[in-house]
Amino acid sequence: MKILVINAGSSSLKYQLIDMTNETVLAKGLCDRIGIDNSFIKQTRGSEDAVEIKKVLKNHKDAIEAVISALVDEKIGVIKNMSEISAVGHRVVHGGEKFNSSAVIDETVMEAIRECIDIAPLHNPPNIIGIEACQAIMPNVPMVAVFDTTFHSSMPEEAYIYALPYEMYEKYKIRRYGFHGTSHKFVAERAAELLGKPLNELKIITCHLGNGSSICAVNKGKSVDTSMGFTPLQGVAMGTRSGTIDPEVVTFLMEKEDLTIKGVSNLLNKKSGVLGVSGVSSDFRDVQVASKEGNKRAKLALDIFCYDCKKYIGAYIAIMNGVDAIVFTAGVGENDFNIRERIANDLDFFGIKIDEEKNKIRGQEIDISAEDAKVRTLVIPTNEELAIAREVLRMLK
Amino acid sequence: MKILVINAGSSSLKYQLIDMTNETVLAKGLCDRIGIDNSFIKQTRGSEDAVEIKKVLKNHKDAIEAVISALVDEKIGVIKNMSEISAVGHRVVHGGEKFNSSAVIDETVMEAIRECIDIAPLHNPPNIIGIEACQAIMPNVPMVAVFDTTFHSSMPEEAYIYALPYEMYEKYKIRRYGFHGTSHKFVAERAAELLGKPLNELKIITCHLGNGSSICAVNKGKSVDTSMGFTPLQGVAMGTRSGTIDPEVVTFLMEKEDLTIKGVSNLLNKKSGVLGVSGVSSDFRDVQVASKEGNKRAKLALDIFCYDCKKYIGAYIAIMNGVDAIVFTAGVGENDFNIRERIANDLDFFGIKIDEEKNKIRGQEIDISAEDAKVRTLVIPTNEELAIAREVLRMLK
Repeated sequence: MKILVINAGSSSLKYQLIDMTNETVLAKGLCDRIGIDNSFIKQTRGSEDAVEIKKVLKNHKDAIEAVISALVDEKIGVIKNMSEISAVGHRVVHGGEKFNSSAVIDETVMEAIRECIDIAPLHNPPNIIGIEACQAIMPNVPMVAVFDTTFHSSMPEEAYIYALPYEMYEKYKIRRYGFHGTSHKFVAERAAELLGKPLNELKIITCHLGNGSSICAVNKGKSVDTSMGFTPLQGVAMGTRSGTIDPEVVTFLMEKEDLTIKGVSNLLNKKSGVLGVSGVSSDFRDVQVASKEGNKRAKLALDIFCYDCKKYIGAYIAIMNGVDAIVFTAGVGENDFNIRERIANDLDFFGIKIDEEKNKIRGQEIDISAEDAKVRTLVIPTNEELAIAREVLRMLK
Repeated sequence: MKILVINAGSSSLKYQLIDMTNETVLAKGLCDRIGIDNSFIKQTRGSEDAVEIKKVLKNHKDAIEAVISALVDEKIGVIKNMSEISAVGHRVVHGGEKFNSSAVIDETVMEAIRECIDIAPLHNPPNIIGIEACQAIMPNVPMVAVFDTTFHSSMPEEAYIYALPYEMYEKYKIRRYGFHGTSHKFVAERAAELLGKPLNELKIITCHLGNGSSICAVNKGKSVDTSMGFTPLQGVAMGTRSGTIDPEVVTFLMEKEDLTIKGVSNLLNKKSGVLGVSGVSSDFRDVQVASKEGNKRAKLALDIFCYDCKKYIGAYIAIMNGVDAIVFTAGVGENDFNIRERIANDLDFFGIKIDEEKNKIRGQEIDISAEDAKVRTLVIPTNEELAIAREVLRMLK
């Protein structure tokens, strides 16, 4: 049984075709820098070298088409035609309170996902485009939506209720939802395996750091708090998102810059974060280069990001009254050792201490803790695609 | 030399007449529940019992007039007329980036304070009313503005720059300012005295918890971060303020509730927080009573408040990489032992541990740490009035 997994993010789209008989990845790939210059699709087949094809990817529809072309391509593809795909799993960012588990997609489910667009304006639209593009090509293939919000449905009330008039929660379900749940769950479970302890005895803080970033407190295997909120805008500074700011800044910006609701939302979601502070790029690699070249605002952007992460780590240690492991994952978390170092350094009061040399290894599963660290710091590549494929299988059974 | 200190808050106004020859408080008082029902003025002369007079205090102008009447009152007053007052010190909440120190008030200073109204809509107006009322009665008496923001001017860039387009900081000075600075500074200095160690060797977290609440990380005597931000709206849930929320909630509320900029700001500043969640009151005493009577939303409001405070304590331990003392101060922090207990409990991973019995003592300076606590937890009544009077003297010299 071959399952195609589609994971469409704000500026990237990852996919995998997985043979679930043995969880083998037949092909996996990435469309990156969607909507930015130098976009490309990169596909890897089995143990072969990745093939990178520069391709203008103006939007996510372009990306999905590129994925399909690559999978059935005579030279680099792995299947002859779409009929070999038994099911498709779609990562969907926002499930609101409607979805406490994954869902087999039908028109009712699609409608519910569409209803979440206004609370995830950057994310649910590409997810929906992905689903619709697949449905058009494979009308009879079952599809499953796996939500980023599901894992966080275990949060206690004091973590998810905002201090707004309570009616605003009752009427509109305004509350903290949290995102990246599939990833936080996956790496927390893997961390327990690596630590050789049952997950339900561990306090873990998972740092999913990429173009979008969130941090999660996982107590006994359950998400008890996470940095993103009602939408993926809250939390740490991100590639283009402001993260947490004074709520009054929103109204102040509207007034001073004469912005509409959409205008200020666009500013906070697409023009802020590391891009906004640095003025260089939303891509951490570009900002790192600029910082090393002496660009002060680039350095400041990275300082703010690391500082924000440090504060969440401290906050989550407080609410769990302890921590056994810190996990870094996702694009930045797996690859940017400088960011990891700056976040993890000067936290030895908590028993967190990393080994400078081990930390320099990029993009692979590794325990980077120093010998005398009381808390383990791990780098665990996330595998949302495999986690989603397993969910698809579970849902279809 | 007698100095009158005026400290006008959002729903209360404290004042003291201090003889600076020996820092004796001749009279001190409080106008409370301004704009709420059951408002009153309470004045204490020397060591006498407090005299409480029920009085309708619709606004802060009413309150200032009541203070002046009480001070010159034949029966309960301490001076014959206003000419005995050598100077007036005014607490002013927001000084923006204009004021890095206190300022002798002239028209230029007043104009600068007025310019800060839109970023402190709840606070600078009552401050200005206080100054103007005093000026009208005592035109030749020097007055000094002491700002809540000054103490926080030592924050590093990564703590005060928001991840917005950098031009928003350059154009409008949108940044974290922080408030309650006079109080945080006063109790941090006093904590060092109580601990018998130089302030510049200590890491202290000061929790100013009242109708408005903020938490501050004081490293070596300097504020390095604080929970309030651009305005006093950011941070923990407060009496009527939401504290930190997802910025997208602001635009979402505007859209769904068809609110103007002023409307949503009003909702977040005056109808949210403990009042909004509980539906009972903005006064913690009322909410505690309701919670004990089984009101679930009242309990939830207090849960959220304590949970928020816990998270800031953890975050600030992270950025200072340690902590020597936690200080509770202000109305709630000094008097509500239940709140103190809920915040300080389950933080023994940090070495924070309080003595249940000692903690039950209300409203006085006390070390409430448990015997085996590594971190000291202190209750220190704040004295912003004395701190302001000292500033007045320093500025006029």
